[in-house]
Amino acid sequence: MTMMKAAVFYGPNQPLKIEEVPKPTIERGEVLIKVAACGCCHTDLHYMDHGVPTFKKPPMILGHEISGIIEEVAEDVTDFKVGDRVILPAVTSCGVCANCRSGRENICFNMLMPGNNFDGGFAEYYKAKAKETFHLPEEIPLQEGCIIADAITTPYHAVKNRAKVTPGDTVVIFGCGGIGLNMVQMAAAAGGSVIAVDLAQEKLELAKKFGAIATVNPKDVESVPKAIRKMTGGGADISIECIGNPKTMEQALDCLRTGGRFTMVGYTEKPMTLNASRVMYREMEVVGSLGCGMGDYPKCIELARIGKIQVVPMVTAKFPLDKINEAFDTLRRGEGVRTIITF
Amino acid sequence: MTMMKAAVFYGPNQPLKIEEVPKPTIERGEVLIKVAACGCCHTDLHYMDHGVPTFKKPPMILGHEISGIIEEVAEDVTDFKVGDRVILPAVTSCGVCANCRSGRENICFNMLMPGNNFDGGFAEYYKAKAKETFHLPEEIPLQEGCIIADAITTPYHAVKNRAKVTPGDTVVIFGCGGIGLNMVQMAAAAGGSVIAVDLAQEKLELAKKFGAIATVNPKDVESVPKAIRKMTGGGADISIECIGNPKTMEQALDCLRTGGRFTMVGYTEKPMTLNASRVMYREMEVVGSLGCGMGDYPKCIELARIGKIQVVPMVTAKFPLDKINEAFDTLRRGEGVRTIITF
Amino acid sequence: MTMMKAAVFYGPNQPLKIEEVPKPTIERGEVLIKVAACGCCHTDLHYMDHGVPTFKKPPMILGHEISGIIEEVAEDVTDFKVGDRVILPAVTSCGVCANCRSGRENICFNMLMPGNNFDGGFAEYYKAKAKETFHLPEEIPLQEGCIIADAITTPYHAVKNRAKVTPGDTVVIFGCGGIGLNMVQMAAAAGGSVIAVDLAQEKLELAKKFGAIATVNPKDVESVPKAIRKMTGGGADISIECIGNPKTMEQALDCLRTGGRFTMVGYTEKPMTLNASRVMYREMEVVGSLGCGMGDYPKCIELARIGKIQVVPMVTAKFPLDKINEAFDTLRRGEGVRTIITF
Amino acid sequence: MTMMKAAVFYGPNQPLKIEEVPKPTIERGEVLIKVAACGCCHTDLHYMDHGVPTFKKPPMILGHEISGIIEEVAEDVTDFKVGDRVILPAVTSCGVCANCRSGRENICFNMLMPGNNFDGGFAEYYKAKAKETFHLPEEIPLQEGCIIADAITTPYHAVKNRAKVTPGDTVVIFGCGGIGLNMVQMAAAAGGSVIAVDLAQEKLELAKKFGAIATVNPKDVESVPKAIRKMTGGGADISIECIGNPKTMEQALDCLRTGGRFTMVGYTEKPMTLNASRVMYREMEVVGSLGCGMGDYPKCIELARIGKIQVVPMVTAKFPLDKINEAFDTLRRGEGVRTIITF
Repeated sequence: MTMMKAAVFYGPNQPLKIEEVPKPTIERGEVLIKVAACGCCHTDLHYMDHGVPTFKKPPMILGHEISGIIEEVAEDVTDFKVGDRVILPAVTSCGVCANCRSGRENICFNMLMPGNNFDGGFAEYYKAKAKETFHLPEEIPLQEGCIIADAITTPYHAVKNRAKVTPGDTVVIFGCGGIGLNMVQMAAAAGGSVIAVDLAQEKLELAKKFGAIATVNPKDVESVPKAIRKMTGGGADISIECIGNPKTMEQALDCLRTGGRFTMVGYTEKPMTLNASRVMYREMEVVGSLGCGMGDYPKCIELARIGKIQVVPMVTAKFPLDKINEAFDTLRRGEGVRTIITF
Repeated sequence: MTMMKAAVFYGPNQPLKIEEVPKPTIERGEVLIKVAACGCCHTDLHYMDHGVPTFKKPPMILGHEISGIIEEVAEDVTDFKVGDRVILPAVTSCGVCANCRSGRENICFNMLMPGNNFDGGFAEYYKAKAKETFHLPEEIPLQEGCIIADAITTPYHAVKNRAKVTPGDTVVIFGCGGIGLNMVQMAAAAGGSVIAVDLAQEKLELAKKFGAIATVNPKDVESVPKAIRKMTGGGADISIECIGNPKTMEQALDCLRTGGRFTMVGYTEKPMTLNASRVMYREMEVVGSLGCGMGDYPKCIELARIGKIQVVPMVTAKFPLDKINEAFDTLRRGEGVRTIITF
Repeated sequence: MTMMKAAVFYGPNQPLKIEEVPKPTIERGEVLIKVAACGCCHTDLHYMDHGVPTFKKPPMILGHEISGIIEEVAEDVTDFKVGDRVILPAVTSCGVCANCRSGRENICFNMLMPGNNFDGGFAEYYKAKAKETFHLPEEIPLQEGCIIADAITTPYHAVKNRAKVTPGDTVVIFGCGGIGLNMVQMAAAAGGSVIAVDLAQEKLELAKKFGAIATVNPKDVESVPKAIRKMTGGGADISIECIGNPKTMEQALDCLRTGGRFTMVGYTEKPMTLNASRVMYREMEVVGSLGCGMGDYPKCIELARIGKIQVVPMVTAKFPLDKINEAFDTLRRGEGVRTIITF
Repeated sequence: MTMMKAAVFYGPNQPLKIEEVPKPTIERGEVLIKVAACGCCHTDLHYMDHGVPTFKKPPMILGHEISGIIEEVAEDVTDFKVGDRVILPAVTSCGVCANCRSGRENICFNMLMPGNNFDGGFAEYYKAKAKETFHLPEEIPLQEGCIIADAITTPYHAVKNRAKVTPGDTVVIFGCGGIGLNMVQMAAAAGGSVIAVDLAQEKLELAKKFGAIATVNPKDVESVPKAIRKMTGGGADISIECIGNPKTMEQALDCLRTGGRFTMVGYTEKPMTLNASRVMYREMEVVGSLGCGMGDYPKCIELARIGKIQVVPMVTAKFPLDKINEAFDTLRRGEGVRTIITF
């Protein structure tokens, strides 16, 4: 049996272990990928530090933001050949449930996630179904391209399908962490006039670099909603909350104009206090946004290819697989935008 | 000065007074209407019984669901002639604010309401701008046609523009009062498979007559959301809350399938506790709905003309102007669907 | 080998031959269906009479409107059990191409059709993938239910997704044959105010029975577009051409109001002369409509279940398998609405 | 009577005459604007050179792309004060017709155009209704800002409301004249991946400067549709024809993927030969696009303010009023992008 190196997750509150594990073998319809990079996501950290259970029981390989090179293709695969550059989706869908069949595969009833339902990308090799693999154009760097699979697609879905940003819309982004900053550049790529909100001034500076027109630091104003309503002459068209805090969610609704749309991207298990009379009388909209369907991956890749979305500056740290536990420390310290493991 | 009879509102907690007041005189662009009927709405009752202030200070004539016959037209009016049957919109919009210009005149920043911003329809005559007057086809009875102006248009807007019911959608209507029952028949007219929810069994029977396929009486089930999720094999596509109660609002969200849309029509000043994680993870939508734009009136009139919407059985009591205070007692007692004043 | 009776197509311009052929055997994920009925479609006639080639070379079994009873299920199938009443989709999609992934499986790049790409339903048994099989509720008769699979779903897709009929819209349907009449009842079920156009007066009478509010016989008017523009006070909102004739297509565009939408359902290989200046200056829309995605089948079934769509009166002739060539003669003579083969 | 200088149109095929004419006086709800600049549009040239009739009979002042400074406001006007920088819409709408009330004021039944229905902007002063006047932010140069009123708004409406470009869509623009180049930068601002098509290589170079990712010169390829289908891996998502030529219209349809949308912006009185079977079988969409509603002006102004849309480089020639006939010669020779008259 051929072996490969991988970072194995044995359970919460213990470091990942670098080990030799069997290299995957492919079947009909599958491709084997030599992993070039795999992003470190807060979702991984939830399994490692906060006891969120994975669907596959540990030991398991985490990691769901994968790029690489095709190493081997099954006999029946025609879309890919050895040497092709590819990225993999962060979540796959079944294609046959009611949600998939209505164009909403991102809320597929049978979704599967690498590094959760089965072994993921913190390993030298990864196998995938050809139909769940995407070509990565040469214009996009192979390693940094891995972050498209989640850090870029999640904002794409939120901005295009849920917030429905159109050119000239004023869009307020609450939170300028990894998802938030990518939300800023995606909303700007859609023609939005973006206002970024964060408590950290350096993140607001980054937001400006990625396309924000204006910023609001809650420390500087008495009321964020009031400040935004004033800046926008009555309220923003759209707000997107990327933090997952009921209080900022309320602000995200309050900063909008009559008829505006508030999109929830951040997760919280706590309830939000919803101003029902405001929603009714002003015809507000509150919509959730989860992940991104595979059908939208080609659009995200095209945006990165033509440079409307930048991936290189979003990758603020690279670590080899051996240093993966140090890599996750950057997330624990809230450093940078995206840390990736490179091979 | 020519006089007419009207029911005058002098302030909350006192009966309307039947008096002789000056008959309106028309100016350029206006028409004078001999009122045939004017509906009694809970909105009127809010001014009369609950101290909700009107924009025009009393004394004032209430009433905003008006039908009648053109009695006189200004010289420059070409769309109407003496003798034409007409209905008037319950709310008028300015046509030039940002909301009007984007096709959302129902949330016009300068909306005006008869019997609130100026004298309304509980009077023998009413004057209106020709451009804010609609022809009533002969197929629709003149008196009962008055209820189109609010009791029919509000459900139209909610069902078509906000809930976006399409054929075969399962639609849960919470509350089968005047608005709720009309919501039932409107959702059915849009092709919806309607489930009606109410505590009063006789209202559920009415709901069935107006097109509900199934009904749920909360008294009969342990949990309304669970009952509906079971009936619909996982959750309804759409829910519309017509009561204005934070608890039923929560049920209206809980009874939906993943990706469903909850529409708020009922008003409450209390906040709703929103299950934010459900909204985010399941990509739910929560949307408010207010009134109806004038642009949709011709559609509502057409639906009544071709019989897809019934107005006659919705009018469950008629009173002459002299008995208007008795007429409003039927609302106070929760009797019937719609009470109208006829002339 | 177990055998079954089937009508076998050996090539154009010769009758179907009733023969004993092997009964299908099922594999993982599949179900075996005892066919109850299979509709006779003009598409079949195109193969039989007009030399349109099938993807699978003859000999082949035609038929793509199938209902039946589950006779056998593969071990891994959990959604169906022996005895279940089912219908099968007229076209299946791959679930993974760009169109499928964006919710448009009806234009799947890899669509397959029973009785074209592989053996169809003019046989005692038919096998299908469980994920491409739909439960048929008891409220819908088993035999007549077969026509949902094409005669009902095609209008559903056209009316809801392409013409986008909403309540109160005036909708002109050109052609009242099998598809046209079902288009009439579907547009009416969506709340449309339907005007039917056909040269045969008896078909116009049928159209009225299925929900048309008005009819136009081209023999009775100088110009169909002018007549419709007059009836509708300026032009209809929507038109749907179900004939496939460039001349009626032009009329279908001309009868619309400024900003109206013309939907092409009928097929012609000839080009249409498009009034480009009218399309541009009046912002018209011309949209094609093809078949129906599987994701919409549950909606169609629900509409038939609750009686908004009638299937029984649409079936105007039933023949046993032995008489299948006589059954297709009814189509050749333009008789009735839908002829089905029953078992 | 106070006089002002204006360029007066006396009829086709004769130069505009610079004359002293009465300065407009304002009434209730109006503002007087000292004109800063007025764009020279091909529409003006149609009146001057091609005998297209104006609604107001000559003598008349042409010009409908106006910027300026508020010189005087009527007593009842509160939104503007003397000294405010403003732009005026190229077309105004009534706000009360069916199209206006459904959010489609750009196809208002009562639209009016300066320099066509009444005197326009090739004059020292211009009067307008306050409600039809827009503030111009300081970030946008006063003179060049005039082109927003048509050269920017027409592409905005086409790209956002009709072509419905979303991030990552491949968009083919046929024609890189004034409207075409602005279409390129607008489609790019909406996140589109733009392919520009023109016979003039220098215009294709300009298109690249304004955001095109790729260009096609029909001289260089055997077939434009084939070339584009190859570049895009099967066909573009969207095409926009800005020329008004039935042949390029056919190419604009042919270059699209299955399910694509072709938007007509260019005008031709000749019919287009429409491949009906392609439209039907592949579910194509053909939609017209005309002008832009006033409700979208604030979005266009915001796009120029934040620099996503550039106006300065689009203005390739400035002439004083005295040289207006020479200014129009630049249009006759097809020079530059936009020529404006400055004061």
